[in-house]
This record gives sequence, C-alpha cells and structure tokens, in this order.
Amino acid sequence: MTLAAEPLLTALAAVVGTDRVLTNPADLAPYETDWRGHFKGKALCAVLPGSTAEVAETLRLCAQAGVAVVPQGGRTGLVGGGVPNDAGTAVVLNLARMNKVRSLDAMAMTIAVDAGITLAAARQHAATAQLNLPILIGSEGSAQIGGVIGTNAGGSNVLRYGMTRNLVMGLEVVLPDGRIWNGMRALTKDNTGYALRHLFIGSEGTLGIVTGAVLQLVPEPQRTTTAFCPVVDISSALSLLDSLRRAHFDALVAFEYISAATVALIAKYRPELASTLSVTTETGDCLLIEFAHMRASEEADAAIEADLGIAFENGWLTDALIASSETQRKAMWAFREAISFAQNDAGYSVKNDVSVPVARIPDLLSEATTAVAAVTPLAQPICYGHLGDGNIHFNFSPATPEVSGELRALEPAIVAALNSVVQSLDGSFSAEHGIGQAKVETLAKFRAGMELELMRAIKTLLDPDNRMNPGKVV
Amino acid sequence: MTLAAEPLLTALAAVVGTDRVLTNPADLAPYETDWRGHFKGKALCAVLPGSTAEVAETLRLCAQAGVAVVPQGGRTGLVGGGVPNDAGTAVVLNLARMNKVRSLDAMAMTIAVDAGITLAAARQHAATAQLNLPILIGSEGSAQIGGVIGTNAGGSNVLRYGMTRNLVMGLEVVLPDGRIWNGMRALTKDNTGYALRHLFIGSEGTLGIVTGAVLQLVPEPQRTTTAFCPVVDISSALSLLDSLRRAHFDALVAFEYISAATVALIAKYRPELASTLSVTTETGDCLLIEFAHMRASEEADAAIEADLGIAFENGWLTDALIASSETQRKAMWAFREAISFAQNDAGYSVKNDVSVPVARIPDLLSEATTAVAAVTPLAQPICYGHLGDGNIHFNFSPATPEVSGELRALEPAIVAALNSVVQSLDGSFSAEHGIGQAKVETLAKFRAGMELELMRAIKTLLDPDNRMNPGKVV
Repeated sequence: MTLAAEPLLTALAAVVGTDRVLTNPADLAPYETDWRGHFKGKALCAVLPGSTAEVAETLRLCAQAGVAVVPQGGRTGLVGGGVPNDAGTAVVLNLARMNKVRSLDAMAMTIAVDAGITLAAARQHAATAQLNLPILIGSEGSAQIGGVIGTNAGGSNVLRYGMTRNLVMGLEVVLPDGRIWNGMRALTKDNTGYALRHLFIGSEGTLGIVTGAVLQLVPEPQRTTTAFCPVVDISSALSLLDSLRRAHFDALVAFEYISAATVALIAKYRPELASTLSVTTETGDCLLIEFAHMRASEEADAAIEADLGIAFENGWLTDALIASSETQRKAMWAFREAISFAQNDAGYSVKNDVSVPVARIPDLLSEATTAVAAVTPLAQPICYGHLGDGNIHFNFSPATPEVSGELRALEPAIVAALNSVVQSLDGSFSAEHGIGQAKVETLAKFRAGMELELMRAIKTLLDPDNRMNPGKVV
Repeated sequence: MTLAAEPLLTALAAVVGTDRVLTNPADLAPYETDWRGHFKGKALCAVLPGSTAEVAETLRLCAQAGVAVVPQGGRTGLVGGGVPNDAGTAVVLNLARMNKVRSLDAMAMTIAVDAGITLAAARQHAATAQLNLPILIGSEGSAQIGGVIGTNAGGSNVLRYGMTRNLVMGLEVVLPDGRIWNGMRALTKDNTGYALRHLFIGSEGTLGIVTGAVLQLVPEPQRTTTAFCPVVDISSALSLLDSLRRAHFDALVAFEYISAATVALIAKYRPELASTLSVTTETGDCLLIEFAHMRASEEADAAIEADLGIAFENGWLTDALIASSETQRKAMWAFREAISFAQNDAGYSVKNDVSVPVARIPDLLSEATTAVAAVTPLAQPICYGHLGDGNIHFNFSPATPEVSGELRALEPAIVAALNSVVQSLDGSFSAEHGIGQAKVETLAKFRAGMELELMRAIKTLLDPDNRMNPGKVV
C-alpha cells in the first residue's frame, strides 16, 4: 500500500464501515484469486458495500482518486474476469452483502433482485411461487446474479431458454463515475430508445457495475424425461437432434454430447458412475437428452419413447435408456458432470469452449482433431458439451499422465490450431465462458477490425480512464 | 434542389445507376411519406442500392457531402421513423432491391437474409423447410426485415417467442461513415465482447443501416387451438392468463384482450363479424386466446378445453368458443383485426401503445380512464391488445363522430394524462411502435436523466454529425 492510498481507504471506510474495507493480507487473499485458484492478483483492498448507494459512493471515490475497480461476484468464472492484476493498486468490489430479493411478481413471472444474491438463492425464492429461473450452471451456489449477468452465463438449458441475456428484463447499474442508471423496468415490451441493458450484459464489469436486475421467470415444469443414449456417430447425433427438435421443440431443454474418448475416460477413472449406465470404455459417443413438460403427460412420454425407438431403427442409436426414477436421472447427470473430474485424474488438460453452427459440428470435430494432431501427438481430444447449441468444450488431455508438462507447454499452439479451425467454420472461440483476462489477445485477433474498434470506442465512451476491470475483455 | 447537391446526385448515380436515384417529384413522393400518409416530408432524392457495397458507398458519399440519410423499409411504421423531415436535403435510402435470402440452415434453424426482403417473403422461404419465423405483424407483406429489426417489432406472438430482438442472431450494418460491420454470425452462444447487435436493433436507423441479418427460426406448429371467450372483468382475465400460462406455457402464443367498449364498437360498425361469434354490443370484455402445438395432440386439446371449463365454473368466463375449423379461427382473428377499421368508422381516434407489468393492467385501465375523463368527457377509451405481454393499445374514440375535431385538438392533453399514469405504474409509453418522430419529446421527458444522457452519448459516438435519420429517437 502506498501512502497516497491512505486517504482513499479512510474515505471508503467512512462509506461502508471499517470492517468492510479489507486490507489485511489474510482477509484479502480470497478476493485476489478465483474459485479454482487458477488466476491470482494483488489488490489494494476489497470493499464490501451493502447498498447501491454505497457502491455509487465507492465508485465516486475511486474515480476521484483515479483508482481501478475490479467488480467481483462469486469468483466462479473460468477466465479470470473477476481477479485483479498484479499491481496491487485496484479496489476489489464484492457485492456479496447485497443479497436480497427486492420483489417477486408471480403474475408477470418476474423477480427483482440485488446483484449479490447467489443464483441458487434467487432460484429458491422463485420456487416458492412455483416458478423457475431457468439458468442451470454447476456453480449456482456461489455464482452471484451480477456475475451471471456480467458474463451472460450459458449452461444446460440454453437450448430452450436462451442465454442469460434473454432473461434479463431490467438492470440497475452504477457507472464508473458513480452515477446510477435505474433501468429496473419489468416490461416484456418497451421500445423507447437504445437497449442500454444489453451493453452491460456480458461486458464483464468493464463498463459499469450491475447492482440490481429484473429477471424473467417461467413456470416450474411438472415432469422431466431424461434419456441416456449411446449413438453411432456425430452425424447420427445431429439427425436425432433435428428430429427431436422438430417434434418436441418446446420441451427439449438439454441435448448433451459426450465423445467416445470422453466416455472412455469416465469409464476408466469413474468406473462406478459408468457401470450404473452399463457404459464401458468401448461404448462410444453418448448423448444425454432431457425434456421438461409444463403438464405431466403420458402421451408426451410415449411420443418421446416412440421417437427414440425410431432413432434406434434408423441405426442412429445403439441403445436408449430412459430414466425411470429420479435416482436414475441423477446417475445420468452425474456421469455428465464427472467429465471434469475424470479429466483432472488424467493429468493437465487444455480447456476450450467453442461454438459453431450446429451443422458444422462434424467438421469441427474432424478438422480440429487433425489440426491439433499436426501440432502434437500428445494431445488427446476430450470433446463434450451442449450439442443442441453448437457449443463444444473441446478439451485435450495428455495421452498419458506423464506428458502433462509437455502438453501444458504446447497449450498456446494447441489452442491457436483449434481456434483457427473454429474461425474458418464461422464459429466463436468463447461460447459461454467469456473473455476475462485469459482471452483478451484472442479477442483482439479474431474480432480485429470494425468489431474491435466499435467495442473499444464504447469502452472509451463509458470508461474513459480505463479504470473498470482494466485488462479484461478489450 | 440546391446546386451544391448536384455533384452528390451525380456521384450517387454512378454508384447505383441513374434510374435508381429518384429526384422527379412524382417518383419521389411515395418515399416521402408513410403507408398511412400520416407523416410527410421532403427529400433530396431516394436511392435504391442493390448491394451492401452500394449502401456503403452511398453512405460514404453522403458523409463526404455532409448530407443526412433516412433509412427506409416498407414504410409501415406508425411513428414516422422512416419519413424525412421537411428540409428537402436528406437522402432517403430504401433497401427494397436488396431482397434475397442469403442462406437457410435447416439444422440450426437459422436464415440469413438481405435487409430489404419483406417479412412475408422471409417467412415463406422458411416455410419451405417446415420452419417458422415467428414474427406476426399485420404489415408483413410490406414490412422489410431491416425495418422489423430497426424497430424491434413486436406483434401477436411475443408472448411465446419474445420481441424481434430475441430472434436476431447476427447483423450486417453499414455505419454512418460507410464502413461495414460484418456481424453475420449464426451462433446461439458467442460470449466474445460487447453485444453490438443489440445497439442497432431497435435504434430506428439512427446509428447505422442494417443491410443483412441472421434470424432464429422455430419448427412450424402442427396444430393450433384458438378460443374466443367473453370474460367477466379484467381481473378474471388475469386469473385465466395466470392459470393458462402455468399449464400451457410452451403452447400459449397469444392472449389478446378486447374491452367491452371496443367489442361494442365492432358490433356496431362491423355487425357481420360480431354476429359470426354471437357477439352483441352488450357482450362485454372478450379474450382471443391461441395455442400452437409442435405435436398434434388430442390430450393437449382436451386439457385446454378442461381448463376453459374450469374458468367458466370459477365465474371468470361467461362463455368459451373453441374454433372447430380454420374458418372459425379466421373469424375470431377477423374480429380482432376489425378494431382499427371500426375505430376509423367512429371518427378520429387518439392512438397509444403502452405497457405495464401485467398485474398492473387493472390499475392502468381504471386510473387512465379517470385521468383522461378529467381532461375531457368526449374521449371514449377503446382498449385492446396483447394482454399477455402487458401491452395495451389504449386508444380513444370520440363519444360521437361529430366531436372528432375537438378530440383531435385535445390529443396532446389526453396522451399526456395517459402517459403520466403509465409512468406511475412503471410502464412504457411506447411498447412496440417505437419513437420515430412522433414520440421524441415524450422520450426526452420520460427517459430524462441518466438514460437519455447515455443514449445521446451513444448517438454522438456512432453518428457525431447527427446525419443518420436526424430528428428521430433522440
């Protein structure tokens, strides 16, 4: 801490309370890293405001002092977006204390919340009115709504409900200079000028700080149908996707792909999960498919079963297991969620999160595999993800755990080879994880030209001194 | 035309061809007004470019000459957004010649089009792949996709599919200086920086010109169920809405309200349409409800019938007619669409397009009726609209046709009284029609402060010389 910082710390303490300005290294440490401990930085302090007014005053003081601000949610992001850089001069702003539901409108199916509430808490509150906040991500217990909005979170229900962006009706935002924009409207239709909220959604705290939000809810489904299906190959998987979307568009909430190599990895490192589903290292590509029905309907169940039967007869599927109990359903999702753990067991892994138009997924899988094989024979593709959204987590594990170090050294070349293929297929190098600090250079490369220029102009307009989450996104 | 304009006209002709720069008053006239002839202006010329490159070159030349540009679609808007002002110095840019489908991806359910294609033509092309572009507006035969996107069009299926914004995946935009932004990506998930497309959607051509778009399609429904229901009162209508949304959320595509006075107006001026539905001037409030099913299902039909039966038993409905044929369905919609014509027959009408959170609709109806009655006893509220979206076309007809002139003179006071009530209920003074030239002052009043300031800053950033559709929106 420099002497010059003292007056700012004193002023901040006067706003939020002395014990809510953390400077002691031990207190500060959790705020200087992410959940996985993958990114680390140094902050001047962490400030824990308790209201929008306190956030505004904090930002005003930081603007006056010319000090950078790093907004932070549950720190569950994967690209270091909420972690300060190494300078030790930034103020980390964590909204964990702003965790209230402001109101719930059961008739309009909307909920207004503070940005610091966790996704799980917001979902639980919605459930008290038999409503559902349909953003399904594994980190919901820690992830705060502000972070979910700031990163435009995706997850497992995007196929049916879209990205977080689609569910945000209104926002309250504190701008870099401390002024408050109250855009907490709860209107389905409001064509009164530019869509300011969409600027802030997905901007990862680089344009302002989301302090409140109005979110669209949906009714809780009455019945869920879940199927686990070994599939002949990726093009059969796409044929099935097309057929199921056309027949069950409204109900189809998840269509997850797990490649043969990924299935084999789970079977090897998590055999207990594999055996429950009669899966072995030889099973091949698998699909996890889920339908959510607003009305419990035996007819719908029968239609799904019939359609999976046709897929089997068409030679697309080698088997189809429909969950007959919640236990069985959980076993299917446990298999899907075991991928990260199995990858950890297999050594260091290179992680990616790419998307292409759905029909180009087979090209993506084959071309990127070839391109990375040309870089190194040590990288084994471990591909899985939200096939229905064209979103593949195109990861690489070491051929054997012993070559983890070599794989890590080759990471930049591997990622570059993959991203080139993605770009050639009109895809995105970051489908749902965002940019943070990890992909700033990739953005500058693949969005170069007009797009980057426009983004930088917007950044300069709203944050002329580049104090909001500097070093992130653009 | 001034002498100074000559070199620009010559240069434009060199770009698009002499016969595509219209200056002859007779040729130019249609481009200087809207569909209804409600707004009129004067242009220097109308330019009809045939490609994005020609649009870019046109904008570059206009920038060089410091000349204003008014982008124009099918001129079906209701707020004069595509009509030039009276100066006679602006270049009207109409994209009617850019009317091609660029590509259709049946697997991803996306369509890429030129911005000048009509909504109807785009919908027809989607239908060749048994897909649906679910934007339902009466003007689809004339409205161009560029205008639909520029105004973020609403319509009758917003309840299920959201505003146009929700269906736009990618855009191609020519900026005021003639540079082209190619954002024609067709990705469900793409978290790579700021959401530029959302700036242009709904900006009514004030920030740039949309020349191409990628739109999300959905499967064509296999079966439609339509019901026409006299309802006891507005709170019964909301009870029914809540019950149907919870049970049939995925299928409910339209929930339209027609007030008792509006029903009586149709019964009076369009008796043949009313009698088909056994409606009289005494019938009272009515609802038009539509469900679209991806799978034809007798079970779903039975469930809808049962739920309407319960609504009758609950004392919410006084009757419920379910269309038993396409003819009957069309009769129901014809009744709904007859409102504008019946209003025309009743004399001059003051038209509004407001929204509030759904639960506040009863307050809106009663409070605004009282507020306007205090302005004049001559204005009869004619309320109808997309109740499911909280969107009411809160119009006023003269108590008798003879007082049309007096009503017209009172229009500003009537609209002001209504908008004050809307604002007090956290609503919007323009739900789907936008701002154009008609509501610029209203926007400046009701979005004053931070919101207007941010909009103006964005306008200045992208169009520093205020040459794009000047006098519109902000």
